[in-house]
Amino acid sequence: MRITVLAGGVGAARFLEGLCRAADPADITAICNVGDDFAWHGLHVSPDIDTVIYTLAGLEGELGWGVRGDSLAALGELAELGEEPWFQIGDRDLATHVWRTERLHAGRPLSEVTADLARLRGLDLALLPVTDDPHPTVVVTPDGPLDFQDYFVRGRASAEVVGVEFPDAASASPAPGVLDALATPDVVIVAPSNPFVSIEPILVVPGVRDALRDTSAPVVAVSPIVGGEAVKGPAAAMMQTLGHEVSALGVARLYEGLVDVFVLDEVDGALAPAVEALGMRAVVTDTMMTSADRRLALASAVLDASGAR
Amino acid sequence: MRITVLAGGVGAARFLEGLCRAADPADITAICNVGDDFAWHGLHVSPDIDTVIYTLAGLEGELGWGVRGDSLAALGELAELGEEPWFQIGDRDLATHVWRTERLHAGRPLSEVTADLARLRGLDLALLPVTDDPHPTVVVTPDGPLDFQDYFVRGRASAEVVGVEFPDAASASPAPGVLDALATPDVVIVAPSNPFVSIEPILVVPGVRDALRDTSAPVVAVSPIVGGEAVKGPAAAMMQTLGHEVSALGVARLYEGLVDVFVLDEVDGALAPAVEALGMRAVVTDTMMTSADRRLALASAVLDASGAR
Repeated sequence: MRITVLAGGVGAARFLEGLCRAADPADITAICNVGDDFAWHGLHVSPDIDTVIYTLAGLEGELGWGVRGDSLAALGELAELGEEPWFQIGDRDLATHVWRTERLHAGRPLSEVTADLARLRGLDLALLPVTDDPHPTVVVTPDGPLDFQDYFVRGRASAEVVGVEFPDAASASPAPGVLDALATPDVVIVAPSNPFVSIEPILVVPGVRDALRDTSAPVVAVSPIVGGEAVKGPAAAMMQTLGHEVSALGVARLYEGLVDVFVLDEVDGALAPAVEALGMRAVVTDTMMTSADRRLALASAVLDASGAR
Repeated sequence: MRITVLAGGVGAARFLEGLCRAADPADITAICNVGDDFAWHGLHVSPDIDTVIYTLAGLEGELGWGVRGDSLAALGELAELGEEPWFQIGDRDLATHVWRTERLHAGRPLSEVTADLARLRGLDLALLPVTDDPHPTVVVTPDGPLDFQDYFVRGRASAEVVGVEFPDAASASPAPGVLDALATPDVVIVAPSNPFVSIEPILVVPGVRDALRDTSAPVVAVSPIVGGEAVKGPAAAMMQTLGHEVSALGVARLYEGLVDVFVLDEVDGALAPAVEALGMRAVVTDTMMTSADRRLALASAVLDASGAR
């Protein structure tokens, strides 16, 4: 069984952790958002890819990102040199970015470097950045556009988001393997990630949305909105300011025409009929991934819901 | 009084520490060797410049390089990723290299970046890389040429050195301020550094040797060889394999025609007449810089010997 997952950061990483227990990791391909990628003191940081890798390697920090228990000696020294430590990179995490940047500067594509990194971390799934090209997410606020990390980390996601833009999307090409992974797998899963800044930047890479629409596989999406709130991050606030209903139903509407099965949390069971009215099958289950068992159960439920097993 | 110092790593750093107490640091310009510079996982490391900065900032590690008491979390993580940790960079030290590389990649010359770094570390002396251009030192062994750090760190300076080459010297230009600092200061001091791989790579930059020969100032050199041994590093072994007498007199011969005053340690007092026969004035004093007081005393003795004060 071949499984392809569209993945953002923390929510996708936790889902993939369960999926790697529910299925053979060697059968899984994750297509990762790179819209959050940025240069940290000249080093290439891929936050979503790293969150997935660290989580699957059992190294993830307490907040879902970075390396658990990491020290901050280098960050402190940069502060001594007058650098504002707005983006917290720990010392072990820093090694990842040094390692990645060395290879990118040598001309190797992000997809190769990411595959090597995943292998070195002992992972058996295929981890693909959606593109090897620069493809940043820009968040539009009433005060103007912001680079994603300026909005998300420096500004603590407090700005009102009135638009999301992908200025380099048109010149980005899908990374090797991305379109193939969407063409004829047994199931495509849209992870419970932010629709606007995790999934949409994957879909806007030329060819990807069409590949998802044309895939021979059932497409299953898991709602990142539970009980009208985002499990993590600014998805709910964005839905509101971007003019969408802040609910799992609102998410389902965003995926209308792309998704065959929509997975809602039990607290949102009442929304199932409205989801089905969009032409999707609604599946209601426990989607809160607060333990390894619940992550496994959700991944199993999604695979079952797809009809692929 | 304007003082210009030709500087390598540990010996020069310790001498400069005394000199900054013997004179006003604002009157001191150190012209630093960059032949040891190399890319560590894509980051630009300037070992001699960093040794001078860390020493003068009171941060130097127990062995004279790196940051005292530094942690090794990033290095350990790189080892987890399969990288051989042959060159030990601590976490705080790493911040320096990240900081420097970010600016060099942005197109700023090493001299500007070095000046900023010295200022941020609270130093008042002028610290000039001899050149902003790539200018590596290559050590020739019976088994072929080695990059300097491959010889010095990876190989623990154990290879027999049968030659030292500077393949990019002809295309290197003196950094801004270097020739001016040599033209009309009140004294030029050749620090007690390795003549072959610390001082010579400074002198071979086009224009520098001539500037030293033509300077209006007295030139004072301090022997890095004491009692027939190098105070630190492979200078004595190199003198032997390169065909020179392994003694302070052998060093004096290397500087013949360039140096007016040669400072020898008390244990080498018997060599003074032979040094004077080379046309230099020999000054015998305590050159072992094992304490702050001895460093200050040596610097004072050198200034006195120059006749510049």
